[in-house]
Amino acid sequence: MNSKQRTVSFSQLFKIFFIVCMITTALHITAAAQQDNRYIRIADITVDSAYLDNYKTALKEHTETAVKVEPGVLMLYSVYYKEQPTHVTVFEIYADKAAYEAHIQTAHFKKYKTTVEKMVKSLKLSDVSPIAMETKLK
Amino acid sequence: MNSKQRTVSFSQLFKIFFIVCMITTALHITAAAQQDNRYIRIADITVDSAYLDNYKTALKEHTETAVKVEPGVLMLYSVYYKEQPTHVTVFEIYADKAAYEAHIQTAHFKKYKTTVEKMVKSLKLSDVSPIAMETKLK
Repeated sequence: MNSKQRTVSFSQLFKIFFIVCMITTALHITAAAQQDNRYIRIADITVDSAYLDNYKTALKEHTETAVKVEPGVLMLYSVYYKEQPTHVTVFEIYADKAAYEAHIQTAHFKKYKTTVEKMVKSLKLSDVSPIAMETKLK
Repeated sequence: MNSKQRTVSFSQLFKIFFIVCMITTALHITAAAQQDNRYIRIADITVDSAYLDNYKTALKEHTETAVKVEPGVLMLYSVYYKEQPTHVTVFEIYADKAAYEAHIQTAHFKKYKTTVEKMVKSLKLSDVSPIAMETKLK
């Protein structure tokens, strides 16, 4: 009797292990799929030197608001080139294309666009795909 | 007597509060100084189309190793342009200039450079400074 009980118990254990494996695999697939859907782009901006400080202030304010209040705006890293300070690059990561489409409809994005309209001399948006994305930053 | 004890106690409390404030401020200044020292650059690479897949594999392997084993390599994000897949951009963040200098002396970096030597048609390295760096990713 004891032996039979133990056999059933092992069988149950195996079933539980199997189910846990299936769930873990499903979660990994879901996470990978979500990463695959990420919408990544690089914005190259030439700023009118007369408005450089004002532009940086507007960009900083907009960046902080967007990442803070929009769940789908995952990363906005803005930098300027030391040898050409009017050249600004923004590395942008959104959860998916829909998150980006929602982003450009927000009040803070529209306010930013209106504010910087006269400050920006050129804007080039490039869609990119990840090769390797490793970070220790949070 | 009780009143005097209470006064001494308040005085001690004030001292502790003052010391805590000083330590917190010092930690904030240290953290800010560390962020200010960060060395950020953008690498623009043109890859020979014949070696594109091999190049991506080498870059991925190198990126994963560098961020994993080098404490001063904080972020390496590598992407390729969808409209021009031979154009690769790497967004690089190091703890400071010394961390970058140490990075290019590592065995894995030298191995990567040797491996990709014949695959890379052009390489442009640009030093950049942060304007706004916001992320939800880790």
